[in-house]
Amino acid sequence: MLSYTPPLKDIQFVLFDLLQAPAVLNAYAPFAEVDRDLMQQVVEQAGRFAQEVLFPLNAAGDAGCRFENGAVHTPAGFADAYRQYREAGWPGLTCAPEDGGQGLPHVLNGVLLEMLNSANMGWTMYPGLLHGAYACLVQHGSAELKARYLPQIVSGEWAVTMGMTEPHAGSDLGLLRATATPAGDGSFRITGTKIFMSGGEQDMTDNLIHLVLARLPGAPAGTRGLSLFLAPKVLPDGARNAAHCIGIEHKMGLRGSATCAMQFDGATGWLIGEPNHGLNAMFAMMNTARLFVGSQGIGVAELAYQNALAYARERVQMKAVDRPASRQQETADPIVMHPAVQRLLMTQRAYIEGGRMLACWTGLTLDGARHHPDADMRHLMHEQLALITPIVKAMLTEQAFRGASQALQVFGGHGFISETGIEQTVRDIRVAMIYEGTNEIQAIDLLLRKILADGGERLQRFLAQVEQTATAEPAGSLASEAGTLLETTRSIRAVVQALLEASVNQPQTPYRIADEMLRLVGHCALAWLWLRAARIAEQMQEQDPVFYGGKRDTARYYFTYVFPEVQQLLGVVNACLRDGNSAALHADLSCDLTMSRAG
Amino acid sequence: MLSYTPPLKDIQFVLFDLLQAPAVLNAYAPFAEVDRDLMQQVVEQAGRFAQEVLFPLNAAGDAGCRFENGAVHTPAGFADAYRQYREAGWPGLTCAPEDGGQGLPHVLNGVLLEMLNSANMGWTMYPGLLHGAYACLVQHGSAELKARYLPQIVSGEWAVTMGMTEPHAGSDLGLLRATATPAGDGSFRITGTKIFMSGGEQDMTDNLIHLVLARLPGAPAGTRGLSLFLAPKVLPDGARNAAHCIGIEHKMGLRGSATCAMQFDGATGWLIGEPNHGLNAMFAMMNTARLFVGSQGIGVAELAYQNALAYARERVQMKAVDRPASRQQETADPIVMHPAVQRLLMTQRAYIEGGRMLACWTGLTLDGARHHPDADMRHLMHEQLALITPIVKAMLTEQAFRGASQALQVFGGHGFISETGIEQTVRDIRVAMIYEGTNEIQAIDLLLRKILADGGERLQRFLAQVEQTATAEPAGSLASEAGTLLETTRSIRAVVQALLEASVNQPQTPYRIADEMLRLVGHCALAWLWLRAARIAEQMQEQDPVFYGGKRDTARYYFTYVFPEVQQLLGVVNACLRDGNSAALHADLSCDLTMSRAG
Repeated sequence: MLSYTPPLKDIQFVLFDLLQAPAVLNAYAPFAEVDRDLMQQVVEQAGRFAQEVLFPLNAAGDAGCRFENGAVHTPAGFADAYRQYREAGWPGLTCAPEDGGQGLPHVLNGVLLEMLNSANMGWTMYPGLLHGAYACLVQHGSAELKARYLPQIVSGEWAVTMGMTEPHAGSDLGLLRATATPAGDGSFRITGTKIFMSGGEQDMTDNLIHLVLARLPGAPAGTRGLSLFLAPKVLPDGARNAAHCIGIEHKMGLRGSATCAMQFDGATGWLIGEPNHGLNAMFAMMNTARLFVGSQGIGVAELAYQNALAYARERVQMKAVDRPASRQQETADPIVMHPAVQRLLMTQRAYIEGGRMLACWTGLTLDGARHHPDADMRHLMHEQLALITPIVKAMLTEQAFRGASQALQVFGGHGFISETGIEQTVRDIRVAMIYEGTNEIQAIDLLLRKILADGGERLQRFLAQVEQTATAEPAGSLASEAGTLLETTRSIRAVVQALLEASVNQPQTPYRIADEMLRLVGHCALAWLWLRAARIAEQMQEQDPVFYGGKRDTARYYFTYVFPEVQQLLGVVNACLRDGNSAALHADLSCDLTMSRAG
Repeated sequence: MLSYTPPLKDIQFVLFDLLQAPAVLNAYAPFAEVDRDLMQQVVEQAGRFAQEVLFPLNAAGDAGCRFENGAVHTPAGFADAYRQYREAGWPGLTCAPEDGGQGLPHVLNGVLLEMLNSANMGWTMYPGLLHGAYACLVQHGSAELKARYLPQIVSGEWAVTMGMTEPHAGSDLGLLRATATPAGDGSFRITGTKIFMSGGEQDMTDNLIHLVLARLPGAPAGTRGLSLFLAPKVLPDGARNAAHCIGIEHKMGLRGSATCAMQFDGATGWLIGEPNHGLNAMFAMMNTARLFVGSQGIGVAELAYQNALAYARERVQMKAVDRPASRQQETADPIVMHPAVQRLLMTQRAYIEGGRMLACWTGLTLDGARHHPDADMRHLMHEQLALITPIVKAMLTEQAFRGASQALQVFGGHGFISETGIEQTVRDIRVAMIYEGTNEIQAIDLLLRKILADGGERLQRFLAQVEQTATAEPAGSLASEAGTLLETTRSIRAVVQALLEASVNQPQTPYRIADEMLRLVGHCALAWLWLRAARIAEQMQEQDPVFYGGKRDTARYYFTYVFPEVQQLLGVVNACLRDGNSAALHADLSCDLTMSRAG
């Protein structure tokens, strides 16, 4: 059985030591009163809820939901936990007070979501879309829709689901076929089959608010013919809408979350935003959803790491190479003393703590993008957010899967046994590399739409920030690491320049190395934050030598053992650029992807 | 549902075009008659058995075994498939004819095992230990034991299991506690609890031969006090031995294979080999078992790849960047046309086909180590085998897990659904990174015992072979790739020299970078074989332009997109060597692995 302890101390380090969050937030009008005490209190209470209410339901939730006569029964305890969540006021944490929310900064919600996802990723799917749907409705909903649905969404009384995917259309929303016809009274009748709707049906809330993409009569083909509709499970007059769950999926993991196939048979819905501009409205939701998925990555990786570390400190197996005098008489040592196990653990840790810094910095950027008093600054922060969001989503989820697998490895054969619990983390987190846009799509979004589309400007601005940190004095004990980081940002600038030139004649080239580019920029972001963290840790070391010493050492670990991946990434990118004009290389990615080997 | 087609054409390429296996084997007396026709016939029949008999049981086998009143019920059809396997004479394929075997070369058995593991990894666990146990008994068993057990083992009438792990002792066999006391009649009474015994109980064979590690009275502590015993489930007089299954594990995957906890309550057994030299006898088994695990890696990766490729050719989603004129009117293209999907597929392919070359070359080396007429050559081949075995085990299983996950990614959200079948490959193969010595232990074995222990000689000899290929004329179209490979082997030589010097004062250093060193040498081996494969493919291109063209392109892909990992690996190794004397780096791997972050 696993255990979970909220990483409060590390969260405090990130919020207060590294980001100086209260001072930053106080400059934004809605957060003028937010101080360290308040933030700390929220973090502690969130941690307690995650640890005490949600985590005990996590292992049993792996048995999955039950589908019976159109109803979905979530695992035992899920509905009661949701009731407590709602009563404690967690759902609308960052929603505006005038809508019934708590009006707190987004950075705190990110921390809340990390801990909820550590404690129970399956459960956290049910309220997971709230903030995305809130942003979408606030920005694009009619006054009537807002009045009718915002209060219950913000309070968590009704949950939100997203109806996008159809059996033949996943990544390619342009292929969607669901239709919506005007009913004459301002409402529409929605018809079609949606799959992969998380929480499309459940037994936790009295009503469900489905946000559904469908086509109006005569709408153009492709994504420009999609409109977004709000279709509740229960209509305002109390009647059941014609939207029914027809089955739930049996999945590799995340089984506590009901993945529903839904049939819309002329279900009543109302348009959100403009006709044929559904994708635009949906994207207000998707960006928040992508940051949410990033928090799943950190959350599950943290859970796996904590348990691998605890096991490594207990499990005694073989003598360590370099054992202290005090243990010379022992038959064997805790495996945490073996370098191979230390590598597995420290790699997880470097990514988790780095990822947490990145996610919180992103959360704070989101708060600034919404509330900075200066419009230009809001714009710049929006741009920064656009650049970083795909990195947070893709890099943190990929690492979570790897990290959970590394944690399993620490458990050895016992890790493969279901009872141990660690293998659930590997299964649960795997889907995060896929949904809300596959990690490959995130990489294409980053390179094509966020980096190359504006001639590299957004990226240059971000790299300038990184370089400013790397050249700042005093450099601290990581001076040579700062130098390595500078070399890398220069290499990336050169690559982007080459890509801008190459992509005219070789439109495929950026698509081939998008994954590498995402990780390259991601490593610059992580290295930047680790550099800042190490300097702060060195300044504060005397206050808590174990914590701050460990932080500085983890920074060194990141630069020694993790950051060198940039050499591989640059190696691939440059090899691809060099050979970009070769017909043979073009061929290697397509012509032989046949079944010819079977013979 | 998945499908499986034996990759016959590629196996033929490796055996005949690349390795010229018949000519090599004919120089060894027992294989003087082995020709291409015979080998091809064996491969085809093995493929047919795997595809037609085993594969249809694979998905249903994921439901697992049933344990009831001490009996294990394997999934429906498993026992019947085993009967067919036995009747067709597959079990003793490479055992000597005088023991009832077919006397065929090991390289063919490797190919057989790859296909069995593709078709049904869970089922293949049951006969999986046969050849290891055979080698162990032939080398260390008494004449009486051999006479009593070899025929039924070779015929597959009785299956073999291995009893090593105990609850508190996995990687560290020195901690084993099971005891064996002499019964006075030449037999011993074995007492203790063993866990993780694959097929420790089943319903496929009338008898089971347990090979068990235990301690004789007064035996020294640690591994030097272990002896190996043979304890059958049914004794020669027909009585049931006091060795019983007390439960089976619920596992992440590989559920068709029963993982048994076994209680030995004074079970009768006989010593194999010398008292207190059990580990020595066991290792005759372990090395074959490690190659078997490598074949699991290729097998499962191949299954996952085939299905991802087939799906990618069918699934239509979004327009390709560079679509042919013939598709300009289509709404969307098969995802196999998208570079991101091509990258996922080609990376799998480069590793699978490279891994197959490596495994077959290793199999041929094993045949030479046993049967080469020249004793010096046998010795050299033994040395080569010692060097390569941990690479085959660790690198091919790690890649199989990554590859299966990449295959799942190609399926998108559908890959996460159990019904699709691909997620089973990810779960099944995960344990291969753990058992028969974790991949971290393989890396330590390679670097400490195989490379540094003889001052780097074994490795130098292997690298010389690689360099000979890289400098051979004519270089073909991969001349610059050959140059890159040469630079890498030179870098590795320098690193090994530095490690030999550093390890005196810094005994921990090699342990910290053992994983990187394994992958470095592994990439040299793969690059070496891909270089050879590319040259042959270019020479033979006219005979089958699609197949050989694809082979050459895959070689190029390997060098462009996969091989640059060596830059990362060298980056880590050199950073670690550079900072090897720093106290801070020492600290980063230990002092902060505390729970201090929780706060």
